[in-house]
Amino acid sequence: MSLVVVGSVAYDAIETPHGTRERTLGGSCTYIALSASYFVTPAIVAVVGEDFSSEDRSLLSSKGVDLEGLEQVAGKTFLWSGVYSPDMNDRTTLRTDLNVFADFQPKLPASYAGQDYLFLGNIQPALQSDVYRQMRRLRFVGGDTMNLWIAQNRHELLEAIRNWDFLLVNDSEARMLVEENNLKRAAQKIIDLGPHTLVIKRGEHGAMLFRRDTLFMVPGYLLEDVFDPTGAGDCFAGGFVGYLAERGFNLQNGHVDLQELHRAVIYGSVMGSFCCEQFGVERFRTLTRKEIDQRFDEFRRFTAF
Amino acid sequence: MSLVVVGSVAYDAIETPHGTRERTLGGSCTYIALSASYFVTPAIVAVVGEDFSSEDRSLLSSKGVDLEGLEQVAGKTFLWSGVYSPDMNDRTTLRTDLNVFADFQPKLPASYAGQDYLFLGNIQPALQSDVYRQMRRLRFVGGDTMNLWIAQNRHELLEAIRNWDFLLVNDSEARMLVEENNLKRAAQKIIDLGPHTLVIKRGEHGAMLFRRDTLFMVPGYLLEDVFDPTGAGDCFAGGFVGYLAERGFNLQNGHVDLQELHRAVIYGSVMGSFCCEQFGVERFRTLTRKEIDQRFDEFRRFTAF
Repeated sequence: MSLVVVGSVAYDAIETPHGTRERTLGGSCTYIALSASYFVTPAIVAVVGEDFSSEDRSLLSSKGVDLEGLEQVAGKTFLWSGVYSPDMNDRTTLRTDLNVFADFQPKLPASYAGQDYLFLGNIQPALQSDVYRQMRRLRFVGGDTMNLWIAQNRHELLEAIRNWDFLLVNDSEARMLVEENNLKRAAQKIIDLGPHTLVIKRGEHGAMLFRRDTLFMVPGYLLEDVFDPTGAGDCFAGGFVGYLAERGFNLQNGHVDLQELHRAVIYGSVMGSFCCEQFGVERFRTLTRKEIDQRFDEFRRFTAF
Repeated sequence: MSLVVVGSVAYDAIETPHGTRERTLGGSCTYIALSASYFVTPAIVAVVGEDFSSEDRSLLSSKGVDLEGLEQVAGKTFLWSGVYSPDMNDRTTLRTDLNVFADFQPKLPASYAGQDYLFLGNIQPALQSDVYRQMRRLRFVGGDTMNLWIAQNRHELLEAIRNWDFLLVNDSEARMLVEENNLKRAAQKIIDLGPHTLVIKRGEHGAMLFRRDTLFMVPGYLLEDVFDPTGAGDCFAGGFVGYLAERGFNLQNGHVDLQELHRAVIYGSVMGSFCCEQFGVERFRTLTRKEIDQRFDEFRRFTAF
């Protein structure tokens, strides 16, 4: 099955207690696509500047990522820099230079429009809707958002997610979106807005999947060392939607295979955990599907009773 | 099977965003015993003052708690007062009047010394050791501690836990005890100190059980409303050790039934979650074993994949 991913491709400068990287490949679309590439062949829609290196292009290609929708334009690639607190539970953004990303107008190659799965990474909600409208025969669509869009583009965001099967956000974003502090009630209010499935990422504390009548919870994977949490949430997204696309997950007359959704949450958690083991996208240079499936089995062992 | 519980019996003044209680039954021993009473007949060792009310004594008796070891002496019962932050993740202690608890010297009734299970609630470690030495044929022993004893009575604490089968603490206490920030490494260092089993309570984020070669994790139960988290950790302890005592859990030639330990963590989580649903010990006035087992089944449904 085929998956289209929209989002940012960026260069990141990262400082964590374990070290510093001056300029490393990043961006939501990058992480989602790299993560999903272990399950399907993701096709990306994003924009980079003239400074985008051939090595980084090669990394994506080597993982089978379809780059036809990766536009290269005059100017510089989106640059983000941030520093993590000693316990890595907080990070401070030092710099956000949108550069070519400021005028991003996603253009879908003709070959993308007929694909089955769509994940709308965290970009302006009107652009997410724009991409959604260009798809012709979606089986399953969902996306991410952030506090900025919830505060400043609420109307467009509500318009966008009305059509989504799932929304994937962190707990504070979920609370903010429906102005409800209690997560259980917030989840039901979000489901009222359109998505039949809500996935809440909680970082080291795991993840939850809500539907109208069910709840699924998974604790966080306990890592020996967290080197760099950058991109972990996007890798979760890539594992979640990548697994569902691999399995040909479908809404059959409104019926949902809950077990598959639950396993997708586990695969999301697995991919997020691997992401933290090295700086930036470095872990994906060596990661194998076998390691992924082994960690999936570990999750089962560590949570069965 | 029979369980001896040592700890404090107190009166609490509590303020949460949901309201205020001026004087309500509390203390670690109280919560542990009430929680464990759904599984076994706990026998408590504690001290109260002349002001301890017959209603509160009756509540404990009505749950089958053996009060022979509840000493009543001249003076006032231990008084604690605290206020919770709006999100209830933090609390500030306003007042701690040790009163009769300051001179607590646990005296075990003769009938207690032959019992099989012992849980040493959070009291001075030398007193925990004192009680331990009075027991004659223990099958399984463990306890709790706190930052105060870790900082000020480290030597006695290390002496005490050397004999325990399990230690049950929160994550910051675990890190502090062995001066190791990484929880996975901290757990192994604690196991080096004596207890073959370490249980980490993480409040709303669930719990973990570590042994030398295995790990078990459970996410927190998602409550509709948290009214008052006071005592939740002690109720976890009561459910954990209560279930094991009910099942006659034993170390057979060093062999441990892991499934039983995992289920004990779930029962601990279940009891901790019920505790938060009302102020103080109020939830235990109506709680039934049927509700407990139903929530245990919910945990299975919410975490299976």
